[in-house]
Amino acid sequence: MSKDKKQIYKPKAISGFPEWLPEERLIEQQWLDHIRRVFESYGYTSIETPAAEEIDVLTAKGETDKEIYTLTRLQADDSDKREARIGLHFDQTVPLARYTAMHFNELDFPFKRYAMQKVWRGERPQLGRMREFYQCDIDVIHVDHLPLHFDAEMPAVIYEALSALDIGRIQIKISNRKILLGLLDAMGVEDTIPVTRTVDKLDKLGPEEVTKLLMNDCGLSKDHCEKILHLTTVSGVADIRAITPDNDQMKEGIEELAFVLDQLSHLPEGVIKADLSIVRGLDYYTGTVYETRLLDIPEFTSSVCSGGRYDDLAGSYINKHLPGVGISIGFTRLFDVLRHHGYIKAHKKCPTDVLVILPDEDMRAETAKVAQALRAGGHNVEVYHAPQKIGKQIAYAEKKGIGYVWFPDLGEVKNLASGTQEKANATTWKAK
Amino acid sequence: MSKDKKQIYKPKAISGFPEWLPEERLIEQQWLDHIRRVFESYGYTSIETPAAEEIDVLTAKGETDKEIYTLTRLQADDSDKREARIGLHFDQTVPLARYTAMHFNELDFPFKRYAMQKVWRGERPQLGRMREFYQCDIDVIHVDHLPLHFDAEMPAVIYEALSALDIGRIQIKISNRKILLGLLDAMGVEDTIPVTRTVDKLDKLGPEEVTKLLMNDCGLSKDHCEKILHLTTVSGVADIRAITPDNDQMKEGIEELAFVLDQLSHLPEGVIKADLSIVRGLDYYTGTVYETRLLDIPEFTSSVCSGGRYDDLAGSYINKHLPGVGISIGFTRLFDVLRHHGYIKAHKKCPTDVLVILPDEDMRAETAKVAQALRAGGHNVEVYHAPQKIGKQIAYAEKKGIGYVWFPDLGEVKNLASGTQEKANATTWKAK
Repeated sequence: MSKDKKQIYKPKAISGFPEWLPEERLIEQQWLDHIRRVFESYGYTSIETPAAEEIDVLTAKGETDKEIYTLTRLQADDSDKREARIGLHFDQTVPLARYTAMHFNELDFPFKRYAMQKVWRGERPQLGRMREFYQCDIDVIHVDHLPLHFDAEMPAVIYEALSALDIGRIQIKISNRKILLGLLDAMGVEDTIPVTRTVDKLDKLGPEEVTKLLMNDCGLSKDHCEKILHLTTVSGVADIRAITPDNDQMKEGIEELAFVLDQLSHLPEGVIKADLSIVRGLDYYTGTVYETRLLDIPEFTSSVCSGGRYDDLAGSYINKHLPGVGISIGFTRLFDVLRHHGYIKAHKKCPTDVLVILPDEDMRAETAKVAQALRAGGHNVEVYHAPQKIGKQIAYAEKKGIGYVWFPDLGEVKNLASGTQEKANATTWKAK
Repeated sequence: MSKDKKQIYKPKAISGFPEWLPEERLIEQQWLDHIRRVFESYGYTSIETPAAEEIDVLTAKGETDKEIYTLTRLQADDSDKREARIGLHFDQTVPLARYTAMHFNELDFPFKRYAMQKVWRGERPQLGRMREFYQCDIDVIHVDHLPLHFDAEMPAVIYEALSALDIGRIQIKISNRKILLGLLDAMGVEDTIPVTRTVDKLDKLGPEEVTKLLMNDCGLSKDHCEKILHLTTVSGVADIRAITPDNDQMKEGIEELAFVLDQLSHLPEGVIKADLSIVRGLDYYTGTVYETRLLDIPEFTSSVCSGGRYDDLAGSYINKHLPGVGISIGFTRLFDVLRHHGYIKAHKKCPTDVLVILPDEDMRAETAKVAQALRAGGHNVEVYHAPQKIGKQIAYAEKKGIGYVWFPDLGEVKNLASGTQEKANATTWKAK
C-alpha cells in the first residue's frame, strides 16, 4: 500500500480515562512509590486482585450507586452470553471482602493489607468525573474483635504518606459515628440512614438547608435538629469529653474518639482535628470515620482520603464476623487537580541520570563500557544513539532534563545544572 | 437482620483472572521492581495508558486475532449504547502506537519507553489461558530512521532483567526476517505471510510437517522448501556471515544480524544465539526478531520474552514514519508457571522486618516510639496489636516470616532465624 493511500484513524482521548506525559508520569511514580514505602513501613502487605469480579460479587450488598462496567467479548456468540457475567471493580473494598472470604484459611489475622490499583466507574462523561483512577487503600481486618489501636494507626500512616508529597498542610478530621447514632437512638429515630446522609451534606448545604431537610424529609422535630447540629459543631478533645452521653452507644463513641485522639497526640499541631460533622454517608461505617483536607490547595475542595471502621467486612460472602478499619486515598483525582492547577512541576522527562556522549562510531564499545560501569554504580544511563555533533548530543540531555553528560573520550563528566566539568572515573563516580 | 438469616453469596474464582496470596504477591512485587529498575537503568521512561481504548483504535489495523473485551455500563440505557464503544487493551503495543501518535509533538525522540501494565484478552476458559496478565515491555521509537544499535540494546536489557530473577539460564534467540523474506523474494514468492507463519511453527510441528504445509498450502516447490529449511538450521555468527545472499534484502538482513550479534558479544557464553528458524508469525516485524527460552525450566516451553523491529509503529493513527524496536516479557504466565511447579519459594507473608512486642497496655506509647525510631532507620515495623503472652506474639512473627522481634521493656532485639538476642538501640540498630 502506498503511503498516501493509507487509511488513518485519528484517535480521540476517552473522557474520564486520563493519561499523563512521561514527565508527569515520572512524578506520579515517585508519589506512588512513596505511598507504598510508607504503607510497607507499617507492615501492610500488598494484595492485587483481578480487575474483574463476578457481577454477583459486585452487587452482593444490593444495589450500588457506583456505575459498573460489564465485560463482553467483542466476538461473543450466544454460548458466551450464557457465561457468568463479570464486571470491573468500582473500588478496592468489595474485592478485599471477596478475597478475604475466599482465602480466609490461608491468611493471617490481623490481616494488614494495602492495595494500589485502578478502579473503574461507568460514570457519564462530565468535567472532573473519572472513569478510571488509582485508589491507595490500607485496611486491617481481624476475626471477631479488632483492637481500637488500629483506628489510630490509619491517620498516622496517611499523614506520613501524604505529608511528603509536597502538597502543603494536611488536616485529617476524625469523628465516631456512634456518637450521632447514639443520639439518634436516644431520640427514638429508627431510620438513621437518611439522617446521616443528610448531616453528611452539611459542608455543601450549610446548617439551614440541612435543618430543613432533616425536618421535611426525615421528620425530625426542630428541637432534635438543633441538638444534632449542635453536636456537629463540637471539636477538640476537651469538648468531646465534655459531652454528656444520652446512652451507652454515645458514651462508647465518645470514649473511642477520645482514645484515638490521644494516640495521635504525637502528630504536629493541627494535623488531626476532631470534627463531629464528619459522618460519611456510607452505611457500613460503624465507629471511627475519617476525612482529609488539603489546607493549602483551595482548588481541591473535597476529601482526598476517607474511610472508617466497619463491623462486618465480608458478611455477604462468608459466615464469619470480620470487623475492620480502612482508609483510601483518591490518588488520581488528587494528582489530576494538582497537575491541572500547576502545583506539579515536572523537570525530568526520563529517569536517566547520565547521558554518555558517543564521540564517534569507533568508540561505541568504549561508551558501552562506561555506561555499564555507571549503571553498576546505581545510575540510570543512556548512550547517545548516533555520533552526531557534541552540541546536539548535549541539547538532547538538556531537553530531557538529564543532569549529567559523560565524555568517554576525555574521561570527564559535566554537570549541566552548574556547568562544571571535571575528570571522573566511571566505576567510582557518584551523581549528587 | 440476624446473622443466620443473612444471604451469603459464595464467590468463585474467575477462570483466567489469577490472583496471588500475600506471600506470592511479595515475590511478584520484587520481580516487577527489579525489572523496572533495569528498564530505568537504561533510560527507559514509564508511560501508563488507560485500560480502555476506542474499539476503532484497537481494530484500526484490521481484524485482530486477539479477543477484545468491550465495556458496557451495567445500567446502560439507549443513549449510552449510542456512545463510542470502548474495549480493554489486549497488548501494550497498540496503546503505545496510539499514545505516540496522539502526543507526537510533546514527545522527545528517540522515545524510549517501558510499560508494565495488565492486558486483557477475552479468551475462552482453558487451562493456562490467561484473560488478565502483566506484560513488561520496552520499545524505542524514532522518526524516519532508528539506529540498529537499539536492536542490540533490547537483548542486553532483557538479559539483565531476567537473569536476576533466579530462573536459571536464559537463552535469547535472535534472527532477522530480511534474510528469509529476501530468500522468498528471490524465489518469486509473493504472498510471504502464510510462509513465515508456517515456518514459525517449525518448533511445534517439525521439518517434515512444515515441508508438507509449505508445499500443499503455500504452493512451494520441494527445492524451495529445502532451501528454506536449510536456512533455518543456520546458527552462529560465522555460519551467518557465510550465507551467500541471493539479493540486497538478504544481504541487509545478514549484515544487520551480524552487527547485532557483535554488539552483544560481551554477554556470557550461551546467552545469545543466532537462530534463523525464529521468524515470529506477526506480519509487522520487518527486521530483527527475538525469542527467549528458559533452559532450566522444562515446564516453560514457549518464549518468555519476544519482540522485534517494526518499520511503522503508528501509521494507522498518524501520517508519520515511526520505526521502532521492542520486546515484551509475558510476566504473569512466567510467574504462574514457576509458582505452579514449585520454583518460587515464599518465605515471608508481609513486608515487616521487625515486630515490636507489646509487653502491656501501659507501654503502648513506648512501643510506638521504638517502632517510629526503627522506621526512621529504614525498617518496616509492626507493633503487636494486643498485650498478649510473649510466646503468642513471637509465634505471630514466626508465622508471618518476620525476621526480628524487639522487646521495648528489655531494650533487646531477637533474631528469630539464629535465635540470638542482644541489647540494641532502636535509633542506630540495623537489620542484617
